[in-house]
Amino acid sequence: MNHTEYVIQKATQAKHAARVLATVSTAVKNAALLAMADALEARAGELLEANQKDLAAASELSKAALDRLTLNPKRIKEMATGLREVAALPDPVGEITKMWRRPNGMQVGRMRVPIGVIGIIYESRPNVTADAASLCLKSGNAVVLRGGSEAIRSNAAIVKVLMEAGEKAGIPAGAITFIDNPDRQVSTILLKQDGLIDLIIPRGGEGLMQFVNRESTIPVIKHDKGVCHTFVDVSADPAMAEAICFNAKVQRPGTCNAMETLLVHQAIAPSFLPPLLARYREAGVEIRGCPRTVALVPGVKPAAESDWGTEFLDLILAVRVVDDLDQAMDHIARYGSRHSEAIVTQDHGRAMRFLNEVDAAAVFVNASTRLHDGYQFGLGAEIGISTTRIHARGAMGLEELTSTKFIVLGTGQLRE
Amino acid sequence: MNHTEYVIQKATQAKHAARVLATVSTAVKNAALLAMADALEARAGELLEANQKDLAAASELSKAALDRLTLNPKRIKEMATGLREVAALPDPVGEITKMWRRPNGMQVGRMRVPIGVIGIIYESRPNVTADAASLCLKSGNAVVLRGGSEAIRSNAAIVKVLMEAGEKAGIPAGAITFIDNPDRQVSTILLKQDGLIDLIIPRGGEGLMQFVNRESTIPVIKHDKGVCHTFVDVSADPAMAEAICFNAKVQRPGTCNAMETLLVHQAIAPSFLPPLLARYREAGVEIRGCPRTVALVPGVKPAAESDWGTEFLDLILAVRVVDDLDQAMDHIARYGSRHSEAIVTQDHGRAMRFLNEVDAAAVFVNASTRLHDGYQFGLGAEIGISTTRIHARGAMGLEELTSTKFIVLGTGQLRE
Repeated sequence: MNHTEYVIQKATQAKHAARVLATVSTAVKNAALLAMADALEARAGELLEANQKDLAAASELSKAALDRLTLNPKRIKEMATGLREVAALPDPVGEITKMWRRPNGMQVGRMRVPIGVIGIIYESRPNVTADAASLCLKSGNAVVLRGGSEAIRSNAAIVKVLMEAGEKAGIPAGAITFIDNPDRQVSTILLKQDGLIDLIIPRGGEGLMQFVNRESTIPVIKHDKGVCHTFVDVSADPAMAEAICFNAKVQRPGTCNAMETLLVHQAIAPSFLPPLLARYREAGVEIRGCPRTVALVPGVKPAAESDWGTEFLDLILAVRVVDDLDQAMDHIARYGSRHSEAIVTQDHGRAMRFLNEVDAAAVFVNASTRLHDGYQFGLGAEIGISTTRIHARGAMGLEELTSTKFIVLGTGQLRE
Repeated sequence: MNHTEYVIQKATQAKHAARVLATVSTAVKNAALLAMADALEARAGELLEANQKDLAAASELSKAALDRLTLNPKRIKEMATGLREVAALPDPVGEITKMWRRPNGMQVGRMRVPIGVIGIIYESRPNVTADAASLCLKSGNAVVLRGGSEAIRSNAAIVKVLMEAGEKAGIPAGAITFIDNPDRQVSTILLKQDGLIDLIIPRGGEGLMQFVNRESTIPVIKHDKGVCHTFVDVSADPAMAEAICFNAKVQRPGTCNAMETLLVHQAIAPSFLPPLLARYREAGVEIRGCPRTVALVPGVKPAAESDWGTEFLDLILAVRVVDDLDQAMDHIARYGSRHSEAIVTQDHGRAMRFLNEVDAAAVFVNASTRLHDGYQFGLGAEIGISTTRIHARGAMGLEELTSTKFIVLGTGQLRE
């Protein structure tokens, strides 16, 4: 079987499963998720064994990458807990979001339905396998999983355990389909199956995003980088502003919703910046400042033009003093990646202007950009944070893994 | 300037306009739409002159195609009326569709925002130029229009009249950007501008759909073909069923939501089919039947396998007698294009099964598939009927030309 035949066979299995899965009851899906969780814990030994083989083959990876790749009993327990949490969430499928009556008497509504077959292309962490599979299953979608080659044995073992438990509980074969051929060309072929796969969600670095965007003939929801700003307005409460700015940079700098550039109103900068930057330094944050920042705080390294617009994903922060709200919003429009943007202010008018005018997947007034997250927002779960402008922008939960269809209840209505 | 520079210049203009347009007030947008409508009527002479040149250059087109290309005072008046109707619709931008409070006190909501820059690639009819431009403008999006080469002078004249009136009313230059270079390569380059254009909506035949799907690195919302079925159940009211089936096929056969295949329950077929097929024949409909249909009604031409799944777009109908609801739904799943599907029945259980289980952009109980339309559904307008499974499925109105962003109102909330 060549690569194309292999991919078409796998995707066709998923498509058949999707048709069945679309009408599987919530009770069966939940029972399957709970059985899968139990099976992950009961068969932890198999998972650890497969993971050991991946780790042994991956000795050239960095320490951080090896850590991400590693499974241990605690991480397996977390995967199982995640599945049980998804089982406890409401099922979005079948919800009628709206229904109205037309002048001719027919009722028109929208019903939530699964998207169909979702392809997830991801790197490294094996826990994504269980997370993504459980969210797709709960929302009635079949999933085709294409993980990184370095985790292939771990991912295959996880899918095997999940599907053996799932099938016993009534989930159709193919509902969780794993691509176990690591050849890069397989990904390229997968991305052309627009007749079989309905949506691609890539999760990983910029190289993966570009590859998927270039090759895919299937709709793509990107989870791209975040170059996030916080603007501290002249009317900000200084203590609140300091807490928000510190949290947004330091709490977990390697995430897409961490702050990368701090913008400070010129009138508050002389009093606000020196103590904040001292606190950052204590926390090991490297500051790269605009000329006004450098003049205000001794020892700050001057920012290069390329620092604006960079996603550092690290304890590095670019800092710029701006004239006013308009200059801050211009900066964000020019350098931001439309991910998560915040203002700290006590001025209602400026808060509302920022909220209305800033173009981003999430806009915050007086809160940390780190809160952009499906759990924090109350969506119950998160498949990621979309930077695509259609379908779902920002944190994506179960509802965002569904689409709607129109339903029409008539009594013989015709088109005049 | 080469093709790439030309396209980038045009798309950049649109992107700049989009940033301004996103926050232009409803009052200004409505005033612009009304001014544009007036200008189309006042400058009808210019439009007719440009259209004459297109018609003169298109002598090799079919009569139907020439008719679609033709502008006349009545059609110009209809375009103007369309613009005034769009002005009268509610503005979707800025609507907060939902807002809730989290345990930590922060309020999280979703606000409707424009998508950004929408590229519309279409064929033939010049009225699409004014329709699409007005819907994009009202929903706060800049639009890049790429019409068919045969209508290029008419389209350019329409855009010139619209934008001259629009700019005077406060709409930014570039809000309606017209691609006036007919070279096919320009389309290919346009479809790669994912940094500048946010969404592509193709409107036209299958060749155009495939071209766009293959070449685009920008998200695409397809308006693809409709292979629509009506299933007449054993418990159908025969008079209602006949009226619906006749309407769905005959009222306007050249549209994507017209019925292409009729499925009839075996127990009602002997009494139901003969009078209906006689009525179809009087209306000039050619019937292609399954063996059971052929046996029931003398003179019916046998259907070929390729007739199932064909979008005839003409007075041709495939007819199949089926054993039961399950066989009907299997047929639809196998041959349908997931566009518009109908059941006629008085049985509640079967109506609900069809509604829940059939996968299509719109599912009808006891109504004609021809009613699948933005105006008929009460959306107020229609940019088309989407066959893409994400973002918007089925009839698309103004709301479907927007996206949402999360808005968060905090009082100093941090990520723990």
